Amino acid sequence: MGDRSLRSNDLLGRAGNFFEPKSVAVIGASSNPSKVGHAILRNILDSGYKGRVFPVNPHSKEILGVKAQASVSEIPVPVDLCVIVIPARAVPGVLDECGSLGVPFCVVISAGFKETGFEGLKLEREIIEIARKHGMRVLGPNCLGFINTNLPINASFSRIMPPTGKVGMISQSGAICTSLIDWARSSSCGFSKLISLGNSCDLTESDFVEMLAVDKDTRVISLYVEGVVDGRRFMEALSFAAEKKPVIVYKSGKTLAGAKAASSHTGSLAGSQAAYQAACERSGAIMVDSLAELFDLSRAFALMDPPKGNKIAILTNAGGPGIITADACEKAGLYLAGLERKTINRLKQVLPPAAGLHNPVDVLGDAGAQRYTEALEALVSDEGVDALLLILTPQAMTDAVGTARGVVNVFSSTDKPIICSFMGRDSLSEAVNVLQNGGVLNIDYPDHAADILGGMYARTVLTKRPVSVPPRYSVDFERVRAVILQCIEKGMTQLDLESCVEILGAYGVPTAAYHLSESAEEAVEFAEAIGYPVAMKIVSPQVLHKTDIGGVVLDISSSEKVEQTFEQLISRTRRHMPDAEILGVAVQKMVPRGREIIVGMTRDPQFGPLLMVGFGGIYVEAFKDTSFRIAPVSFTEAASMLRELKAFSLLEGIRGEKRADIESVEDVVLRVSQLACDHPEILEMDINPLMVYNAGDGCVCVDVRMTIGR
Amino acid sequence: MGDRSLRSNDLLGRAGNFFEPKSVAVIGASSNPSKVGHAILRNILDSGYKGRVFPVNPHSKEILGVKAQASVSEIPVPVDLCVIVIPARAVPGVLDECGSLGVPFCVVISAGFKETGFEGLKLEREIIEIARKHGMRVLGPNCLGFINTNLPINASFSRIMPPTGKVGMISQSGAICTSLIDWARSSSCGFSKLISLGNSCDLTESDFVEMLAVDKDTRVISLYVEGVVDGRRFMEALSFAAEKKPVIVYKSGKTLAGAKAASSHTGSLAGSQAAYQAACERSGAIMVDSLAELFDLSRAFALMDPPKGNKIAILTNAGGPGIITADACEKAGLYLAGLERKTINRLKQVLPPAAGLHNPVDVLGDAGAQRYTEALEALVSDEGVDALLLILTPQAMTDAVGTARGVVNVFSSTDKPIICSFMGRDSLSEAVNVLQNGGVLNIDYPDHAADILGGMYARTVLTKRPVSVPPRYSVDFERVRAVILQCIEKGMTQLDLESCVEILGAYGVPTAAYHLSESAEEAVEFAEAIGYPVAMKIVSPQVLHKTDIGGVVLDISSSEKVEQTFEQLISRTRRHMPDAEILGVAVQKMVPRGREIIVGMTRDPQFGPLLMVGFGGIYVEAFKDTSFRIAPVSFTEAASMLRELKAFSLLEGIRGEKRADIESVEDVVLRVSQLACDHPEILEMDINPLMVYNAGDGCVCVDVRMTIGR
Repeated sequence: MGDRSLRSNDLLGRAGNFFEPKSVAVIGASSNPSKVGHAILRNILDSGYKGRVFPVNPHSKEILGVKAQASVSEIPVPVDLCVIVIPARAVPGVLDECGSLGVPFCVVISAGFKETGFEGLKLEREIIEIARKHGMRVLGPNCLGFINTNLPINASFSRIMPPTGKVGMISQSGAICTSLIDWARSSSCGFSKLISLGNSCDLTESDFVEMLAVDKDTRVISLYVEGVVDGRRFMEALSFAAEKKPVIVYKSGKTLAGAKAASSHTGSLAGSQAAYQAACERSGAIMVDSLAELFDLSRAFALMDPPKGNKIAILTNAGGPGIITADACEKAGLYLAGLERKTINRLKQVLPPAAGLHNPVDVLGDAGAQRYTEALEALVSDEGVDALLLILTPQAMTDAVGTARGVVNVFSSTDKPIICSFMGRDSLSEAVNVLQNGGVLNIDYPDHAADILGGMYARTVLTKRPVSVPPRYSVDFERVRAVILQCIEKGMTQLDLESCVEILGAYGVPTAAYHLSESAEEAVEFAEAIGYPVAMKIVSPQVLHKTDIGGVVLDISSSEKVEQTFEQLISRTRRHMPDAEILGVAVQKMVPRGREIIVGMTRDPQFGPLLMVGFGGIYVEAFKDTSFRIAPVSFTEAASMLRELKAFSLLEGIRGEKRADIESVEDVVLRVSQLACDHPEILEMDINPLMVYNAGDGCVCVDVRMTIGR
Repeated sequence: MGDRSLRSNDLLGRAGNFFEPKSVAVIGASSNPSKVGHAILRNILDSGYKGRVFPVNPHSKEILGVKAQASVSEIPVPVDLCVIVIPARAVPGVLDECGSLGVPFCVVISAGFKETGFEGLKLEREIIEIARKHGMRVLGPNCLGFINTNLPINASFSRIMPPTGKVGMISQSGAICTSLIDWARSSSCGFSKLISLGNSCDLTESDFVEMLAVDKDTRVISLYVEGVVDGRRFMEALSFAAEKKPVIVYKSGKTLAGAKAASSHTGSLAGSQAAYQAACERSGAIMVDSLAELFDLSRAFALMDPPKGNKIAILTNAGGPGIITADACEKAGLYLAGLERKTINRLKQVLPPAAGLHNPVDVLGDAGAQRYTEALEALVSDEGVDALLLILTPQAMTDAVGTARGVVNVFSSTDKPIICSFMGRDSLSEAVNVLQNGGVLNIDYPDHAADILGGMYARTVLTKRPVSVPPRYSVDFERVRAVILQCIEKGMTQLDLESCVEILGAYGVPTAAYHLSESAEEAVEFAEAIGYPVAMKIVSPQVLHKTDIGGVVLDISSSEKVEQTFEQLISRTRRHMPDAEILGVAVQKMVPRGREIIVGMTRDPQFGPLLMVGFGGIYVEAFKDTSFRIAPVSFTEAASMLRELKAFSLLEGIRGEKRADIESVEDVVLRVSQLACDHPEILEMDINPLMVYNAGDGCVCVDVRMTIGR
């Protein structure tokens, strides 16, 4: 009945236990072939499972030739796994019975839980409590079950068993599982484990990511998720797994993200997709954008190690597809390898005079198997080639099967990835079978094959990253704490500029000298003290975007103008927003124009503080040129955030401009990162613009908005 | 022997003649099965061709059971088409013989022409001359031949004949043809005509686009091109065809574009891909970005009319794929239809209570064929639904074949497009066959299916465009002509600012007051006359990007400063570019800051004057937010160029800014368009920045560069 000492929260040690039960009970097994309880039992029996199987059904003596038990307690041996397929309302009772008997794992197939509304949610909470009480772990409810092709066992109601292979698949959608199995069977993609998560009431995607991370039969972990149960834990699990093997994540549900209302630029630009992207980036997982990519990239990693570098050789028997593939390589961040002299000499020997000796190498339309294979061997031996794309079009003299055999031979004796694109289906099916049986990946379209190779190279880049170590600055934590508490006490949610400036100052973020004036006289006094020119801004908790109502006036250079502007700003605000509470007018040292950057933070409900940098001022929403990371970030991450911006060259200095003080921006990002982590009460923040000056001259925060809450 | 009176340049009338020969000779027919001359003859005979066939080979009496002729002149009846498969050097002689006998059409399969170098090019020129002399039209050389499935005739060396259908395919790559045929045979995609262009020595892509435009058996024209023979003619042909039916263009060879050296921003940002995109846009053709899209969109148009609008209903038996598809619809520019009350009521009647009644409509995992079909019928009847995506995942109760039959029935009684995504291959192949035989398109991945529907909707948008009528402004043509001739006489290629300003002024483009000063005194004099502040810029034919060397100083507001700046600019230029010839220093009225736009023009070698607008100043190369059209442009085109910019909202006014004078920018674009068309000597032009002020305040060109040549 499993090793009870392992029934802790540490699931890693028991990966074998969940996936490798020695005995299984199917509670709700049925002799009616149209029932799921029948399908599950049949699938377990048909899958070649070698442990003991116990159908449980009080109304049957025997199902599918196996003696049935009236209840789980009547089973004569300890049960490692119960698969439960009974009406939802009966599940808690049976689960409690299983728990009392010390069953370590249950899979609840039954639907009718939180997906159906409030009553179902109550029922689901009940089963969570029962599981916790007994220290029993539960997959589901409302799931397809799981498959372990290695044991083997098909503990799911998928009619078909996938081929054995190296892909460990975790899916929040059972239907995606069945479709993947169906595709897999006709493309010789194989799975090690396949888990349908259902409602994830207890065991979650993170648990299974960790289990598959240490599963020796799994070479690549593939996830389909619509959302995750615990974002921070998910990142931990992904990081743990990505240390060991490629992890691919497909997150759907993007359109829903648009519905999120946010008051900050950062919040409105973030959306959950950016947060997932940042979470994957930090964890070293690869995020894909389509089902085809999820499937094909999984197959690729199951069959091959990623390339060491991004220098690709293309081998083709036709010019057109070669050009298409070269285009696609460039788009995918790959380069065509320049071939070594000795490779070109070798190609000269094996190819006819009209052949293309330079990459893409064209063996010509009349190439037979031998010519193709010899050219492939020459390219594989080239030390400047990291990976190969072999394209075959079905022409008159083409020996597709022979070529496939040649490719399989070469593939088995190299550690460089080779992806084929035998372009056709009707006349090439036998050849494609030869490739697939030989463990060689074939992708219908050569441009898509280049994308897949690009995805594999992304893994190479991820594995070469330095370890992330966020810095800790010496800051005035207590002062910020005090300011925040004070504001919370006053019932504020939107901080006033004065408090924002104080908070940033305490964390070493440079800000422009600032004073909130309640009268024109006060404004003049401060302006005279700091010197002209000054900027003046209306201060009101209701006015979030000041420029929208003309609430900002720049370059004021005399006391008369300060006085005039004060009255102007007040009257403009009264006109545009009669109900706005006006706290006064901020007078600020006019800072010289620089390159405008935005540094922001929002809290993702799943992943916590999400940092953003982008080009600021009026450009931020127009160009949406932004980059996200989850706090805390390291020096390297802060640096790469900036370098991911499309317009990063503007900071490096183009057209005669000097290089901007990039390091000072990185410093601000790191300090904001620490601020966000230290003070969870800060919910959202926009530093916009952060004026950035030439290298050595630093930067200064000109305006800032913060939202607080608990 | 064909109607000789039709042997003019107007090929339209004879589409039937080329594709429908009554008699064919194969010159170079061979009884050796490894020869192309054998394959061609066999293919013609096997394809069910009903005309007379004459193998020509002096060394054989009979080939494949058909009496052979010693030469084409010995054939006893007039020959409509000669397919020539003999060594390249023998082609001119035979072609001349054919021409003398009045053969109207030849297909030269033989390779060994311009693709092999200079000798081949000479040979190719020879055959062009012979063709012209006899008024005979030639396809090839170096091609696969052509296939007309309607006659039928397979006059190619493609081993397999594609199924009959509605796709007319024109390809510059023979290998792409054979691959498409191969794919088509396993996905029941059918072709009407298939043409492999080869070297296009005489008949080009444009000829065949025109022929297929009037071919009643062709419903969609698909092109694979790497380059075209005559860009302007190509646009004409595309426009002619796109008036009548969808035209899809896949242009490869993008990476090569990067190699183009250009001295202007416009030139360096354009590249040939932008020109092709602009050419397709103007002609109403749809440009695609991958082979998969070319193939699948062709299939879609062959089977269905495009949707009337972009409101889509998704029908699924699983939630996950529904979400994925909704995401993909949004990305593809489609919207989920809001369903009518009566549709929802109808769905309520046919679906179980747990089903999802709102779009995406979820019939649930246990849906059989009837439930699926009834839900589909309800959605098809909804007047707010323009097109449907039906997703099926293979679950326990799924009746895929029955559902497919239901879909075929509904599809045959509606004019709304329905695309299916039966997600799986192994267990769904029979169902997919039912769909395909019923003329319903099935796409493996539902997100890709949404892309295809997006591509179909693009056609709807194109057909709704107003007719393009470029305006003609009253301008001073002669003045510009004089300035250009003067500059050409002086041997200039890069125009000086003074000439540029004069040219723009003559075409009504507003520019800032300007004077080229050769001494500091002269500069001061002009500055005093126009009033401060002024801007000063170094003027030298060698200094193309002035800010790169600090050659621009702004906001100068006193005579002393003007004097200082003059010396400074001269010494800076001497330091950075000691060899630059300094013509003087330009003094210009300092114009107020506005929103900075770039308006440019470059000449594409194929399509002629290519106009560009984008966000200007330092942002132009950083954000590459640009939009292209081929001149001359209409009001509508100028307006849509601006509206295509990602940051167009900056011109509309965001964050409290007023709307910019968008109309004044459109006016500049239209005037530059006319200038580019009137004066082909202007090779490249950048107006950067064009300062754009608030609505009503116009815009002004602050700097401009022009390159001239003949």
